[in-house]
Amino acid sequence: MSTEQRETLEAVLRQSAFPVGIDVIEQRRLLRELISAQPLPADVTVTAAALGGVPTAEITIDGIEPRHVVLYFHGGVYVLGDAFLAADLASQVGRRTRAKVISVDYRLAPEHPYPAAVDDALAAYEALLRNGTAPSDIVFAGESAGGGLAVATLVNARDHGLPLPAAAFLMSPYADLTLAGTTMETKGEVDTLMSRENLQARVSDYTSGQDAALGLISPIFADLSGLPPLIIQAGTHEVLLDDAVRLAQQAASADVEVTLDITPGVPHVFQNFYPILDEAAAALDRAGQLLSAHLAGAEGVAAGQ
Amino acid sequence: MSTEQRETLEAVLRQSAFPVGIDVIEQRRLLRELISAQPLPADVTVTAAALGGVPTAEITIDGIEPRHVVLYFHGGVYVLGDAFLAADLASQVGRRTRAKVISVDYRLAPEHPYPAAVDDALAAYEALLRNGTAPSDIVFAGESAGGGLAVATLVNARDHGLPLPAAAFLMSPYADLTLAGTTMETKGEVDTLMSRENLQARVSDYTSGQDAALGLISPIFADLSGLPPLIIQAGTHEVLLDDAVRLAQQAASADVEVTLDITPGVPHVFQNFYPILDEAAAALDRAGQLLSAHLAGAEGVAAGQ
Repeated sequence: MSTEQRETLEAVLRQSAFPVGIDVIEQRRLLRELISAQPLPADVTVTAAALGGVPTAEITIDGIEPRHVVLYFHGGVYVLGDAFLAADLASQVGRRTRAKVISVDYRLAPEHPYPAAVDDALAAYEALLRNGTAPSDIVFAGESAGGGLAVATLVNARDHGLPLPAAAFLMSPYADLTLAGTTMETKGEVDTLMSRENLQARVSDYTSGQDAALGLISPIFADLSGLPPLIIQAGTHEVLLDDAVRLAQQAASADVEVTLDITPGVPHVFQNFYPILDEAAAALDRAGQLLSAHLAGAEGVAAGQ
Repeated sequence: MSTEQRETLEAVLRQSAFPVGIDVIEQRRLLRELISAQPLPADVTVTAAALGGVPTAEITIDGIEPRHVVLYFHGGVYVLGDAFLAADLASQVGRRTRAKVISVDYRLAPEHPYPAAVDDALAAYEALLRNGTAPSDIVFAGESAGGGLAVATLVNARDHGLPLPAAAFLMSPYADLTLAGTTMETKGEVDTLMSRENLQARVSDYTSGQDAALGLISPIFADLSGLPPLIIQAGTHEVLLDDAVRLAQQAASADVEVTLDITPGVPHVFQNFYPILDEAAAALDRAGQLLSAHLAGAEGVAAGQ
């Protein structure tokens, strides 16, 4: 059935592909429409909150008593999306880790270019620690630009001397804003969502005169040593495939525990399509198992709670 | 405990490091001594057999009724080792997949340079299929050169029009005999077992005038499309780390399902040290779960057996 599922999905995506060259306001409206069309699971509750002065969406699931926290970073090339639109996918991570999800509504470019997103992400994480959550009870998760931001925030937190979370889960991370990945070309034909052109059109909104190769903008160029285990997933039908691979390579070179988990024939952040794509649910299950294994240590220490 | 385990292991390895510049006969003797010092688990039985005219070691485990077959390729830079010396590690793969292991005693260089090993591996796989084993009931596994040979054999089998096995498990694959990986330099200090020098010293034994960049010698240069899921593991303390990473990259580019699973701070084929290293047993467990998931489809078809 899965070949059929992938073909259906691809046809849908080709129809709803983002036009290049429209302005940010219109892109944001289109994305909101597209995502709002898929209703949240009935057992998911999303509440507006704040953490360290940064707005957040807190996501809980009926019947799951949260033992952990997923700090979640949404995608949208640092320009689109928001913490609430990401609630569906984010809740799928929380569901598989028995965690409350805090989805960070970091400021977006071009109104707020780099380092606004990076600052907001760090402020939220710092506040989470200050509120008494043990770092061993926290994992980061993020998709696309949010995957890059999650890694940048690990690097930033390390450099600020903060304790690091138990692990991070990165779905199709956008980790190189210089767009130097070889799949930027080789996967151009099969990627129905992203292209060098539509990525390039938004890079300077975020970099705003800064070097796109800065480690906190493009974490594949950062020193990744000391980072916690990274679980990186991507599909082979995406121009950002090489961002995932090179991030794994950099992490491994820096003695970081890494799992790179590649699903063939599926698009950018294919996990979004879990209601209609078996591979999506299976990938989320694998990530959930790995994250839970890294969180389990904390449960051991706090046994009996 | 694990940091301590890693340090103990590293000290042991530094003492038993292979001298460079001794001849092949002496290297073979040293390797046999080193490996024979670790007794086989008491429940493992190894029997000399043959498959397609190629000698093999058949490995079974008391109390496990085999449902599948692991076709196993030992390591040793195509010059050292044999099917029997690999029985301990190979049995660990069989144990986790409820499989009989057939460890292939392919011919070694310099007496039998390329393509002898590749020919023997294909002959063994062809005979296994001809004997009536369903490809969906077979996985390939291999360590070091055996990991490279396993991938070369997948490519070779595909090009011969044979049906492919359910998956392949590659531990620290030696997949680039041009030695072009960047970790050949960057991990030289921390790798206690391998170095560019001791690899280079044996390359021409196997290539024997052929181009080391041939796809069946160095499968990172082969077209990997159509291959079954690859599970690739490596440690970060090895000069061959980049072989594992680049193999994953090539496979992903070719739309192959890949899991790259990197364990920090451990040496080449660290899975060998499962009796004294927690990370080794954990890595074998993860591989066993993924392999079993790929083999499970076959069980579904043959339900009730």
